[in-house]
Amino acid sequence: MTRMSKKISTKEEALAFIEQYDHFLFDCDGVIWLDTVAIPGVVKFIEWLQERGQTMAFVTNNSSKSRNSYVKKFKELGFKDIVKSAIYPTCYSAALVLKEQLNVKQGSKVWVLGDIGIEEELKETGYIPIGGTDKNLDGGWDPNSPYLEVDPSVRAVVVGSTKELNYMRTAVAVQYLLAENKSLPFIGANIDRTYPGPRGMILPAGGSLVNLMSYTCQRDFINVGKPSTLLLDTILEDQNFDRKKTLMVGDTLYTDIKFGNDGKLGGHNGGSLLVLSGGSKLEDLDNIEDDSARPKYYIESLGHLLELLE
Amino acid sequence: MTRMSKKISTKEEALAFIEQYDHFLFDCDGVIWLDTVAIPGVVKFIEWLQERGQTMAFVTNNSSKSRNSYVKKFKELGFKDIVKSAIYPTCYSAALVLKEQLNVKQGSKVWVLGDIGIEEELKETGYIPIGGTDKNLDGGWDPNSPYLEVDPSVRAVVVGSTKELNYMRTAVAVQYLLAENKSLPFIGANIDRTYPGPRGMILPAGGSLVNLMSYTCQRDFINVGKPSTLLLDTILEDQNFDRKKTLMVGDTLYTDIKFGNDGKLGGHNGGSLLVLSGGSKLEDLDNIEDDSARPKYYIESLGHLLELLE
Repeated sequence: MTRMSKKISTKEEALAFIEQYDHFLFDCDGVIWLDTVAIPGVVKFIEWLQERGQTMAFVTNNSSKSRNSYVKKFKELGFKDIVKSAIYPTCYSAALVLKEQLNVKQGSKVWVLGDIGIEEELKETGYIPIGGTDKNLDGGWDPNSPYLEVDPSVRAVVVGSTKELNYMRTAVAVQYLLAENKSLPFIGANIDRTYPGPRGMILPAGGSLVNLMSYTCQRDFINVGKPSTLLLDTILEDQNFDRKKTLMVGDTLYTDIKFGNDGKLGGHNGGSLLVLSGGSKLEDLDNIEDDSARPKYYIESLGHLLELLE
Repeated sequence: MTRMSKKISTKEEALAFIEQYDHFLFDCDGVIWLDTVAIPGVVKFIEWLQERGQTMAFVTNNSSKSRNSYVKKFKELGFKDIVKSAIYPTCYSAALVLKEQLNVKQGSKVWVLGDIGIEEELKETGYIPIGGTDKNLDGGWDPNSPYLEVDPSVRAVVVGSTKELNYMRTAVAVQYLLAENKSLPFIGANIDRTYPGPRGMILPAGGSLVNLMSYTCQRDFINVGKPSTLLLDTILEDQNFDRKKTLMVGDTLYTDIKFGNDGKLGGHNGGSLLVLSGGSKLEDLDNIEDDSARPKYYIESLGHLLELLE
């Protein structure tokens, strides 16, 4: 049985829709902004919610930037009062899972294949990131590099996207993922194969790199990004959001929308809204293979939603 | 039903074994040499076969070096009369498949994510390799690089292992693999996840990179390495080897041994010999999940086989 997604197209529909929720979870890229530009109308829509006392959090599978960087970005794009504690990039959820779910001892070293955001959040959570953006790993392949000797004080491996990908970094990550009979926890920042780059380009995303490591080492990983229900549960508890009164807004079916649906947001009426301002197109709704990735509602963008509401 | 592999341990067994075959296919790394050193006794074993008029060919999943490089390496390690036409690295089989199976027009450009061997063999077969070892791709990530614009005269993509891996190279390869509605032929040099490096290190191999591209672009690839039966058929025909009188010797179960078994070498008695001088250990024989990867025979090394025969 194929269920249809409901398009929000009138003022009445928009009002009835928005009244169902007290709490809002937003994906960022493709929903709030495109790369470095806010999507038209979204700054005002967020203000509209804030004025009505609605609460919100931002959940992105991007692991490259820390919460501090996002606070700065929100400010620069004209958003008001977006606080650090309401922002969940997967670099932060990686650190959270290490500490709270896996009980990895504070002060432990963590091998990072990924960007500076992971390093910053690990430090803030009390870990010592190694690897990552270390410039000594930028050179060519060196089979005699001391980095290839496993440091026994490393207690976990975190993999996320990085433009500094090279053979050296993958080779060292393999040593840690195979060390101690493959027992060091292996955290993957997300499962995204690609992301939309400039000029409509499709580019390799963090999930590609996570999969590379998983395939090479024949190991499963802990996904700390959407659609992990563990991540959703953590956020709802952290923010004190009522699951039945929460909406997830995203532009990607198999991460954002599945996240909201698997997490049973919105109660009986559902709590997932697809916006078409990012990676998904209208025709993608016709090709959903897994019902858990089918949005309950859809609309062009949050700017359009605001136009209907006002 | 688990069938056992037969160990060759006496002179009688060795003589009865070797008399079954007229033609020999050898994997190289772990069978003939380890990295840059010939495995003890193997130079003499090959001479022993040559003196008896036996014919042979060498089949390696390594795509980094061309046949000309292998001819040189054989010579340097003391092997005599190993000719170019008897050597099949996957850089060569990639070019062969483009030309003979896929009928890609001579003179076409081919995008390469891989080493110089692929470039050399493509050139020799009449293609124009681009990408590959091009130094302009060595720098950091540049979203404005002209390389990211798809060149419409590229007619295929070949992916093999390279130590020059970086984000830029993977990003450009993705553009070609997604171009023209994913219709450009996608050739993968092998399916090897890892290979044994110096000091017992396990390092990412070509199949890792092929899988990265396959996963990111959600595309299947044509495997031109072992255990492809297409490759075996091509070699047998090329060399005029009688399938029933041919033995495959290798150190890897799921590529070399499966190659010999799937190809029904050796007729009723089988034609696959595992040597323990490379990546596989004796205990690996107890953990074979797929009967097609179970060797018919095994022995410590080709040097040991010669000792028994003499």
